[in-house]
Amino acid sequence: MVDSTVNCTIAVDTMGGDLGPTEFIRGLFYATEELKLQSNFILVGKERLLTRLLKVRKLSIDPARIKIHNATQVIGMDEKPIQALKQKKDSSMVQAIKLLKDGDAQAVVSCGNTGALMAGGTLRMRPLPGLDRTALATIVPSRKKPFVLTDVGANPESTAINLVHNSVLGSNYAKAALGIENPRVALLTIGTEEGKGNTLINETHLQLQKLTGIINYVGPIEGFQLFDGNVDVVVCDGFVGNIVLKSSEALFGFIGSTIKEELLRNPKRKIGAALSASAFKDMKVRLSPDQHAGAPLLGLQGNILKSHGSSNYTAIGNALRIAGDLVKHDMIDSIQSEINQANELIDATETT
Amino acid sequence: MVDSTVNCTIAVDTMGGDLGPTEFIRGLFYATEELKLQSNFILVGKERLLTRLLKVRKLSIDPARIKIHNATQVIGMDEKPIQALKQKKDSSMVQAIKLLKDGDAQAVVSCGNTGALMAGGTLRMRPLPGLDRTALATIVPSRKKPFVLTDVGANPESTAINLVHNSVLGSNYAKAALGIENPRVALLTIGTEEGKGNTLINETHLQLQKLTGIINYVGPIEGFQLFDGNVDVVVCDGFVGNIVLKSSEALFGFIGSTIKEELLRNPKRKIGAALSASAFKDMKVRLSPDQHAGAPLLGLQGNILKSHGSSNYTAIGNALRIAGDLVKHDMIDSIQSEINQANELIDATETT
Repeated sequence: MVDSTVNCTIAVDTMGGDLGPTEFIRGLFYATEELKLQSNFILVGKERLLTRLLKVRKLSIDPARIKIHNATQVIGMDEKPIQALKQKKDSSMVQAIKLLKDGDAQAVVSCGNTGALMAGGTLRMRPLPGLDRTALATIVPSRKKPFVLTDVGANPESTAINLVHNSVLGSNYAKAALGIENPRVALLTIGTEEGKGNTLINETHLQLQKLTGIINYVGPIEGFQLFDGNVDVVVCDGFVGNIVLKSSEALFGFIGSTIKEELLRNPKRKIGAALSASAFKDMKVRLSPDQHAGAPLLGLQGNILKSHGSSNYTAIGNALRIAGDLVKHDMIDSIQSEINQANELIDATETT
Repeated sequence: MVDSTVNCTIAVDTMGGDLGPTEFIRGLFYATEELKLQSNFILVGKERLLTRLLKVRKLSIDPARIKIHNATQVIGMDEKPIQALKQKKDSSMVQAIKLLKDGDAQAVVSCGNTGALMAGGTLRMRPLPGLDRTALATIVPSRKKPFVLTDVGANPESTAINLVHNSVLGSNYAKAALGIENPRVALLTIGTEEGKGNTLINETHLQLQKLTGIINYVGPIEGFQLFDGNVDVVVCDGFVGNIVLKSSEALFGFIGSTIKEELLRNPKRKIGAALSASAFKDMKVRLSPDQHAGAPLLGLQGNILKSHGSSNYTAIGNALRIAGDLVKHDMIDSIQSEINQANELIDATETT
C-alpha cells in the first residue's frame, strides 16, 4: 500500500497560536521526527520570521518538504470572526484556507481564533452536499481507549437530522484518527430514572436505528458512563458537548489543584508527594489532551483542524499527524458516501 | 429569634436507600448529635424493624422527637414510577409524601427511586401557582464555596420561562441551604468564540435581566468557569444539568482510579502514596457530595428532598439538616412570593 501522506500537503497557520510560530516549527519537527509523519508542509505566516526560525534549527527532513507562504496579517484571538475575515484577507488563517480551497494543500491546521476558523472554513470550503451543519469533534481519554466526542460547539441548536449526521461524521473521524474499524457510536442522553431524554434525543434515537450497515449505533448512554470507554463515538448537540468538554477540563484542573494543596499541607505529605511525583506526571500524560489535540471541523469539503490556542509542540505535532491521517483515509470521500446513504435510508423510511 | 426547626417534623422514607433503614437511623443520629438538628422525625417504614433498630442504639435525644409510621411496602429502584405509585399505596415513599400532604410533616427526605419520588411528589404536592415545572437542584463544590446547580434532571425540555423560574428556585435554595444572603445567579452557556449560546439561552438571558430586585443575576458563564466558585447558583436546562452532573461525578471517579493505578505502579511510588495518604482522604472530603447530599425537588408546595440511592449516614444526616434549613427559612413562601413578582415583571414588559 502506498502511503498517500507522502503526497499530502498540510497548510499550517503558524501565526494564530498563543505560543507563536516558534512552537509551530517545534511541532513540525516533532511530527516528522517522532511521529514519522510523511506529509509536506506549507508554513503560512510572516516569511522572514519563518525563514529565520527554520534556519535556527538543523533540518532533519528533506527541505523540499517545507515551503513558506507569506501572509502579512494575523487574526487575533479576541477579534470578531466575520469582521476579521473581511478585513484581514492576507492573514495567515485566510491564506491557509485559500491554499486548501485552491488544491495546493489537502488539510489546514490552525491554533487561531476558533470562530474565525469555523466561519472562514465554512464560507470557503462549504458543507458537503446533503449536510446542513458542520460539527467540531474532539478526542477524549477514558478508562479504556480514547473516544470521539462530537459536536463540541459548532452547532448549538441541533435538529435530529443534524445529530444523525454528527454520528456519521464522528464515526468517520474515529476510523481515520483512532484507527478503529467499526466504531461503536452512542447517543448522549439522561437517565430513564428522571424521564427519558427529550424530544430531540428520542427522535434522533429512532433515526439512528435505521442506519444499520452505515454506522454501528449501539444506543444511548448517560453522563455517568461517559468515561467508561465502552463506546468509540459519543454524539451530542454542540451546546451540550461544549459544556461537557469545557466543564470536564475545568474539573480536571480543579481536582489537580485541590490534590496539590492537600499534598503541600505538611512535611510528611510533601515527602510522600516527592516520592510519588512521577505518578502524577504519568497520570497527566495519560489524561492530557495533547496526544489528540486536533479538533476537526467535520462535514466540510476540506480538512480543517483546530488545535487549542495554547497548544504546545506536542499538541501541534499530533494535530499535524491527525491531519495526515484524515487525508490518508480519504475521510471526506467516505463521509460523503455515508451521508448520501444515510439520507437515502431516512428519506426512504420517512416516505413509506 | 425562635428556632422554627424545633417545631418542624421531617418525614423520613427509611426503606428506599441502597444501604437500608439502618443507615437512616445512623443518619438521624448524625444529624441530631453532630449537626445539632432540632427537628422532630417520623420514620416511615416497617414498624417492627424500625422499632428494633431504634432500640439497638442508645437514644441521645428526647424519644418524643421520633415517631414511627408503619408502611408495609417498598418501591424498588428499578420499578416504573407511575405504576409503582399506583400499586404500592402503602409504600414508605407514598406514605411519607402523604404525611407531608396532610400537614403532619413539613419536609420529606428519601433515598428511593428518583422518578417515583418526583412523580409522586408532583402529583400530591403540585407545583406552586404561577410555575409550570419543577427543578432538581444539587450543591456542587468549587475552588471557593459550594454552589447550587439547577435543574439537574427534572425537566429535560425547558422553555425560557422555565429557566427564569429555575433561577428563582435556585436562588432561594442557595439562601436556605447555603445561607447566602444575596446569591449570585449565572446562566450556563457556551462561548462567544463558537457562536453565542442558542435561542433558548439568549431569550432566557433577556428575561433574567428584567428580574433586578428579585434575584441577583450576574450573567452567563461558560463550562470552563463552572468550578471557579465566582457564582452561587448556576442555572441550566435539566438535560444539560443532568449530563454535567453525572459526567463530572464520572470524571472524578476516573481521575481517582487513574491516580491510584499510577501510585501503585512501583515501590517508590507506593511509599510516597502511603506517606501522603491523608492528603487524598482530605481531598475526597472536600470534593465529596456527602456534605450537601439532599437534592430538593424545587417548586412544589412542599419540601421534598432526594438523597442519592447509595447515601451513607453522613449524606443522610446532611440531607435531614438541609430539610430542616428549608423549613426554617420558609423557603416555599419565599419562592412563591418571588415567582409572583417575576411573573408580573415579565408579563409587564411583554405587554409594553
